[in-house]
Amino acid sequence: MSHHTFVKEFEASQYVEGVYCAQNTQRGLTKNGKPFLKVLIGDRSGQVAARMWNLDDKLFDSLPESGFVFVSGHTQPYNEQLQLIIQNIRATAVEEEQLVDLLPSTDQSIDDMFNRLREKMLTLKHPGMIALAKAYLEDEALMKYFRLAPAGVSLHHAYLGGVLQHTLQLIELADMMLPLYPDLNRDIVLLGLFLHDMAKTRELQFDTAFSYTDEGMMLGHLVMGSLWLQRKADVAREKYGENLPSDALLVLHHIIISHHGIPDYGAAKIPSTPEAVFVSKLDDLDAKTQMTIDAAARGEVGQSKNTSGGRFTEKQWALGTRVFRPDPLTE
Amino acid sequence: MSHHTFVKEFEASQYVEGVYCAQNTQRGLTKNGKPFLKVLIGDRSGQVAARMWNLDDKLFDSLPESGFVFVSGHTQPYNEQLQLIIQNIRATAVEEEQLVDLLPSTDQSIDDMFNRLREKMLTLKHPGMIALAKAYLEDEALMKYFRLAPAGVSLHHAYLGGVLQHTLQLIELADMMLPLYPDLNRDIVLLGLFLHDMAKTRELQFDTAFSYTDEGMMLGHLVMGSLWLQRKADVAREKYGENLPSDALLVLHHIIISHHGIPDYGAAKIPSTPEAVFVSKLDDLDAKTQMTIDAAARGEVGQSKNTSGGRFTEKQWALGTRVFRPDPLTE
Amino acid sequence: MSHHTFVKEFEASQYVEGVYCAQNTQRGLTKNGKPFLKVLIGDRSGQVAARMWNLDDKLFDSLPESGFVFVSGHTQPYNEQLQLIIQNIRATAVEEEQLVDLLPSTDQSIDDMFNRLREKMLTLKHPGMIALAKAYLEDEALMKYFRLAPAGVSLHHAYLGGVLQHTLQLIELADMMLPLYPDLNRDIVLLGLFLHDMAKTRELQFDTAFSYTDEGMMLGHLVMGSLWLQRKADVAREKYGENLPSDALLVLHHIIISHHGIPDYGAAKIPSTPEAVFVSKLDDLDAKTQMTIDAAARGEVGQSKNTSGGRFTEKQWALGTRVFRPDPLTE
Amino acid sequence: MSHHTFVKEFEASQYVEGVYCAQNTQRGLTKNGKPFLKVLIGDRSGQVAARMWNLDDKLFDSLPESGFVFVSGHTQPYNEQLQLIIQNIRATAVEEEQLVDLLPSTDQSIDDMFNRLREKMLTLKHPGMIALAKAYLEDEALMKYFRLAPAGVSLHHAYLGGVLQHTLQLIELADMMLPLYPDLNRDIVLLGLFLHDMAKTRELQFDTAFSYTDEGMMLGHLVMGSLWLQRKADVAREKYGENLPSDALLVLHHIIISHHGIPDYGAAKIPSTPEAVFVSKLDDLDAKTQMTIDAAARGEVGQSKNTSGGRFTEKQWALGTRVFRPDPLTE
Amino acid sequence: MSHHTFVKEFEASQYVEGVYCAQNTQRGLTKNGKPFLKVLIGDRSGQVAARMWNLDDKLFDSLPESGFVFVSGHTQPYNEQLQLIIQNIRATAVEEEQLVDLLPSTDQSIDDMFNRLREKMLTLKHPGMIALAKAYLEDEALMKYFRLAPAGVSLHHAYLGGVLQHTLQLIELADMMLPLYPDLNRDIVLLGLFLHDMAKTRELQFDTAFSYTDEGMMLGHLVMGSLWLQRKADVAREKYGENLPSDALLVLHHIIISHHGIPDYGAAKIPSTPEAVFVSKLDDLDAKTQMTIDAAARGEVGQSKNTSGGRFTEKQWALGTRVFRPDPLTE
Amino acid sequence: MSHHTFVKEFEASQYVEGVYCAQNTQRGLTKNGKPFLKVLIGDRSGQVAARMWNLDDKLFDSLPESGFVFVSGHTQPYNEQLQLIIQNIRATAVEEEQLVDLLPSTDQSIDDMFNRLREKMLTLKHPGMIALAKAYLEDEALMKYFRLAPAGVSLHHAYLGGVLQHTLQLIELADMMLPLYPDLNRDIVLLGLFLHDMAKTRELQFDTAFSYTDEGMMLGHLVMGSLWLQRKADVAREKYGENLPSDALLVLHHIIISHHGIPDYGAAKIPSTPEAVFVSKLDDLDAKTQMTIDAAARGEVGQSKNTSGGRFTEKQWALGTRVFRPDPLTE
Repeated sequence: MSHHTFVKEFEASQYVEGVYCAQNTQRGLTKNGKPFLKVLIGDRSGQVAARMWNLDDKLFDSLPESGFVFVSGHTQPYNEQLQLIIQNIRATAVEEEQLVDLLPSTDQSIDDMFNRLREKMLTLKHPGMIALAKAYLEDEALMKYFRLAPAGVSLHHAYLGGVLQHTLQLIELADMMLPLYPDLNRDIVLLGLFLHDMAKTRELQFDTAFSYTDEGMMLGHLVMGSLWLQRKADVAREKYGENLPSDALLVLHHIIISHHGIPDYGAAKIPSTPEAVFVSKLDDLDAKTQMTIDAAARGEVGQSKNTSGGRFTEKQWALGTRVFRPDPLTE
Repeated sequence: MSHHTFVKEFEASQYVEGVYCAQNTQRGLTKNGKPFLKVLIGDRSGQVAARMWNLDDKLFDSLPESGFVFVSGHTQPYNEQLQLIIQNIRATAVEEEQLVDLLPSTDQSIDDMFNRLREKMLTLKHPGMIALAKAYLEDEALMKYFRLAPAGVSLHHAYLGGVLQHTLQLIELADMMLPLYPDLNRDIVLLGLFLHDMAKTRELQFDTAFSYTDEGMMLGHLVMGSLWLQRKADVAREKYGENLPSDALLVLHHIIISHHGIPDYGAAKIPSTPEAVFVSKLDDLDAKTQMTIDAAARGEVGQSKNTSGGRFTEKQWALGTRVFRPDPLTE
Repeated sequence: MSHHTFVKEFEASQYVEGVYCAQNTQRGLTKNGKPFLKVLIGDRSGQVAARMWNLDDKLFDSLPESGFVFVSGHTQPYNEQLQLIIQNIRATAVEEEQLVDLLPSTDQSIDDMFNRLREKMLTLKHPGMIALAKAYLEDEALMKYFRLAPAGVSLHHAYLGGVLQHTLQLIELADMMLPLYPDLNRDIVLLGLFLHDMAKTRELQFDTAFSYTDEGMMLGHLVMGSLWLQRKADVAREKYGENLPSDALLVLHHIIISHHGIPDYGAAKIPSTPEAVFVSKLDDLDAKTQMTIDAAARGEVGQSKNTSGGRFTEKQWALGTRVFRPDPLTE
Repeated sequence: MSHHTFVKEFEASQYVEGVYCAQNTQRGLTKNGKPFLKVLIGDRSGQVAARMWNLDDKLFDSLPESGFVFVSGHTQPYNEQLQLIIQNIRATAVEEEQLVDLLPSTDQSIDDMFNRLREKMLTLKHPGMIALAKAYLEDEALMKYFRLAPAGVSLHHAYLGGVLQHTLQLIELADMMLPLYPDLNRDIVLLGLFLHDMAKTRELQFDTAFSYTDEGMMLGHLVMGSLWLQRKADVAREKYGENLPSDALLVLHHIIISHHGIPDYGAAKIPSTPEAVFVSKLDDLDAKTQMTIDAAARGEVGQSKNTSGGRFTEKQWALGTRVFRPDPLTE
Repeated sequence: MSHHTFVKEFEASQYVEGVYCAQNTQRGLTKNGKPFLKVLIGDRSGQVAARMWNLDDKLFDSLPESGFVFVSGHTQPYNEQLQLIIQNIRATAVEEEQLVDLLPSTDQSIDDMFNRLREKMLTLKHPGMIALAKAYLEDEALMKYFRLAPAGVSLHHAYLGGVLQHTLQLIELADMMLPLYPDLNRDIVLLGLFLHDMAKTRELQFDTAFSYTDEGMMLGHLVMGSLWLQRKADVAREKYGENLPSDALLVLHHIIISHHGIPDYGAAKIPSTPEAVFVSKLDDLDAKTQMTIDAAARGEVGQSKNTSGGRFTEKQWALGTRVFRPDPLTE
Repeated sequence: MSHHTFVKEFEASQYVEGVYCAQNTQRGLTKNGKPFLKVLIGDRSGQVAARMWNLDDKLFDSLPESGFVFVSGHTQPYNEQLQLIIQNIRATAVEEEQLVDLLPSTDQSIDDMFNRLREKMLTLKHPGMIALAKAYLEDEALMKYFRLAPAGVSLHHAYLGGVLQHTLQLIELADMMLPLYPDLNRDIVLLGLFLHDMAKTRELQFDTAFSYTDEGMMLGHLVMGSLWLQRKADVAREKYGENLPSDALLVLHHIIISHHGIPDYGAAKIPSTPEAVFVSKLDDLDAKTQMTIDAAARGEVGQSKNTSGGRFTEKQWALGTRVFRPDPLTE
């Protein structure tokens, strides 16, 4: 991609050309009964409504409902906002390096985070556990997705690299905390944390836009994660010749399928070992704390009169309350 | 076993010898501080408290907390009931044919039920689905357990052969009902029903007494059933060379992990296809209807003054109510 | 009605005249402050927004907020849709045979379904139960409504004939299933199913549009059904001279007031006899299965890019989930 | 009954003869295998365990599981308590005036309370409402039960006359409060209160001991109350020739079936008119306040060391908490 | 305020000048990209949308997001409604007597209500309780707010004087009812009622518009009320030299923090003394009855075709149901 | 206390004399009707049933229902356990240093833990926050209780020093974790953790046995903690002359009353700032992890046949599940 013009940089009456993310592709009818294309065109910086008049059925059928397109056209003001009038549009494939321009991404280095995570895994003690960690770490296709996967579609960490960032944060927190819990088995905790959200790499589709895959909808990342572990344990045994203690394998399956804590939040079992409880509670602590910090957006308090700059946010459904935004000691 | 004397046939001051099921093996202390053995001795007909004086630590260590034993001794009255005074006791293994004497069993022919079920499976249409059914049916070790497994430890069908009987009942009901639901896919419904409780064969341990296995406690038969399906699909592909459509496999996984209907009852996902809803609701209908019929025990109404012969049962927790027992048209 | 032009056949600039269903009759004000009529005009094929300029207060007062009207006017395009400009409008009564054009209806023969249901009822064994069935079947005014009543206002079977179709489906299913439940009393199950939704004929008003009556809102069809049974039992005794066993009558009342299963779904009692449990669970199985089949609308998968043609439906609130639409073996 | 010796007056080694309430009649076996009778013998003052040795099967079959008996025997100490050794026992019928000795009763005059209630009803304004009240008040068989019925089996007002006392308390409270709620219709509120618990007279059996009848178990006093109102409205129309406004009748049915407030507490509908809300909330206020006052039993605080004399009661399940007993200003 | 023109009296093309309540102050952009002011201008009679073209940033920054403004301009029709085109606007302070024109208010005399309440408090018997009541009654700043505070932002009594009116209603009801509950301590009940909603005077901000304060959001009026009681008890001791029995103080704290009845409704503890139960239930009775009466708005039934004039209201979320509006005996 | 003989060291027929903790003091009656004393006698090592024959009423009245006593007597076997036959018993006061022998205690040094906690508090940055911490730390009477208070009566940390140990654990964990949450205010988090359970020192009575105080029962440690903070903030202002920012004080009140997370667990508000969420989640993580570790008691797995030595514990109600006990990598 030579140069990408970000949507939030669009000005009125500007010619635009490049690869963008299309969403909600629909066929409309004008008052005169002629078909036209209605679609949202976006990238990591935002979205803009777009129209293409004189829509040809064949072209329409070739477009994804949600996916990447090469588009050209120019902008015009409409109802106090900009609108893009499309001249040409066609479906296109994108390279991995383009993704970070097109979709929201972490602001940390993915390479750096992944290296820190891998090194932590190599400090495990039990050879079977190391072999299991390697069965994942050396699966390049999987790790490519693991590095990029978002942690969710709409809540916390909903950006590329979110799963990796959240997983690493938990592993680094745990490694600091474990000396205060000498009864917990470090190998199990760290490996459980590494694997707990692994199947989000396929639960969520993020190569076009953030949405759930069929498997994600029908099985969820907890059951998928357990199915994957069955496969990777085979690899660990066959490729590395390591014996995997059956209790350890059982507990890792259990950590994966129980980490949401209670059935109403998707856990297939309630956490039932010390390590499973710790993993589940630490995951919850980080998710909810980060969500509250993001909602508070303290840096922006007082910048404007409207709600987003007020002392309380709108009600945050995942938290069950509105959030008080100011830092209580720096106002 | 030459001849088995059933516990309910025990009379006072009778000599008894044979294989029984021991439960709750414990060491007690007499008032004089001497150790003795406290254990429940039982078979499919009932249980009796047993004591062995002069307990030797080595013997005690050799006994299972819950399992099969060869025992000899004689009975004596104690607190309006019988008690068994043990002379000799030792752990023992049992043959499959002995199990039906020692544990409660279905009153139908297991062979006959299994044959009816297998024939139903052979009427499936899609070759991939037939291959998948065969991957289970031809796994002799698994089928041996499937034929014997109880449907539960304490509620409906808590006897040997219960899983098979319940599964067959559902399949035969469904096959009669499906003509009235032409939109449902018969292959998926019948195969889904065949597999939905399959992992109960390992969730519940029943070769000694009815209890949960480690895997049953930590994963549950829904997730275990899904893990097994991943293995059996490999078999179907490799052994029978059949292509398994990915949607069908996905839906079968989904049926297995969702068939309890809602998260509070253990479902990892809410049933989300017409076939999954039908399987889940039919399973619930049969379980709850059978449970109510068993609780009502209509044949016995009026036999005695106490509650078990009254017009209402005690509160049935799984139903949330007491049950009105009389047949409303035959009293 | 000589010939009815269906709303979905309306074309732009067409003159229209006939009986339609009016809904949401309101008085608007133009920018110049003059009153006009805003109303939705519809039939079984759809609805169209309508306006009548120069509204006269007397005319407005004569119109039903929701009901049948004779209307004339012509169509014009408005905001990519059609609008009806009314010239004349007046309230009108409709004949029963007109109802099926004006409101959505079952696609099966109502006569045929009713005959099948009546014949099933005549196979009951106990003379008192037959007399009770006749007390309903020979109440012509009631049966006229029972044949037409919709099963609901917005969920499953929300069309004319829905109660009859759903009731018959349950009775035919039950009659096939009962041989596998020899402990259940067939007379009670079949009569209970016949009566369970009977009072929906008056809970829901459907001679103008689908809405709840005062009695429906204040008592619900469960309590109303029980009040009706008290009346019909009098008829059975007086007209047919049959003795009605008190237990049977009590259980039928109980089936009617408990068939929604749990208090949160409107049951006044939790089902507490084997027949009541069976009726409640079968009703639930059919309702939820049919709802999922309707939501999936498999025939239409893939026809369009938007959600209604996607692989998953929107979230179905009554099911608690989105529905996976494809037939897993025929895509 | 010449003279009744109350159970709490029993002394050791006393000869006792008279009519008592038998409960939990059972057949036991001695160590020697001989049958004996185990039964609780009681009256309003308490209960005592009783045994009859040499039980004859014919006698046993003639005794009620729970009911009134004429009994003679003498007392003896057993396990720090008294026990009654029965010589003769036979089932017997009791007169209404005996009931108040045998079962716990209100400490107010039933005649006086009933008269106050009747006079309140005669102050209603609408002739139809007065006719309806009379249809109940002049049903002597019903009123005899209404005067005696307990308000519950185990919670508040569980004594003879409890329904009457609670109903009168609500009516007198309401009549004082209504001037502050001028929008509420006094006739509807007072009549609704009169009828709300009427069917408790048959939901609960209290002529032998406090227990639920079949109708009480299967329908509950809310639905039964609505069925009775249908009958009494016929009487009001036929006997008194009064027109009963349909809205008033509908609202009275609604008050009866909704007065428990929410489905989880047995309401078939949620209260939906101002009068229904007032009736439901006042009923709840009186029930819970009285229950807390009874639990606190302030007069007895500090009399003993054990819990019943402590500052807090045991947890009261119906209140969800323990109760602080002292009067905060008089200790 | 010489003369206030109420918003509902605005006519088209009228010049308007005066103090109003501004809400939702926002900066918009015209199609040409020029900033303009969007704001709602209102008083107790209603609200109207307002625009000011040519908005100057300095002016915008000086305006409250929600607060009182002096405004001049003239009205014009827009989309079937009036709109105010602002010429001048500036933030302003208001006097207490202006508040009643600008915000909705009780229709009773605040002075009269306050006097009745004070006199009730002076009938308490215990000198410590009287001293405590005086500690509140003689806090002029607090009483000024107590007289004006609304009982809520959106549900019952959402108008100036609402807390006082609701509190007085409860105290007068209780004083009539208490003779029928001789076990309740009158001082505690009456004082508990006086204090139960006291902290609503600061939970809700009502000097500009009805909204929650920071303390209201973060602590709620239950905890705030308890904190205030700690302060006022100091005053009572120090200023009046009265001893406050520790149990009485503890129970008053408990009544304040428990009066919402259950944790889900905000109670920090479940009511656990007879007086606390009575206060909580009476508060609930009055709130829900008044809410239903207000929703029914019986005087207006039948005035129009739309829902607000129908026999049922829309669903009332705080009641969980729609409300039947007609007086059942006067239709 | 010269030398204390621990209950678990009692042998049969041993003379015992010393200070112990009495619980459940009751008066029994022998078969001959003579009063005797029944009481549990215990210390940190266990409890033993005790009896004193020939009980004198005056002595009985002088004994606490639950409290410390000086007792002498000798032991004898009874029903396979020991029993203490009391010769003399009288109520007594105990010194702080005796408490640790009489009640279960932490196995860490209380002085050391308290010093570590105080030093952490002195690292706060804001002078107002330091002043507030000092207002607590320099309240010697309070700190004496804070050092000893148990964290609960029956669940986690139910031993002397439990509140201190749990509080310090949270503060040390937080201080390690905070660098990974740069948006959280360290002063607020650390001070919030210090104060969150402070009022447990008076919610729970532990100078005799572990039970709830009146204030604990009626207000709970959340509301009490907030009331205390109001007092301590006065001290901080008056004694140290420090300004306390109002937002900080508000947030600290909020952290205290919200730290149980949801209303059902006693929170008066849902945590609504990033620091409040973090404190609440960390408290939950530590409590549940420690509870699971304690339940698992891994060191003891396999020591015996009965449940306490099995692979799963009994169901842990506070966790909602049974706990899998083995360390998965060391069995």
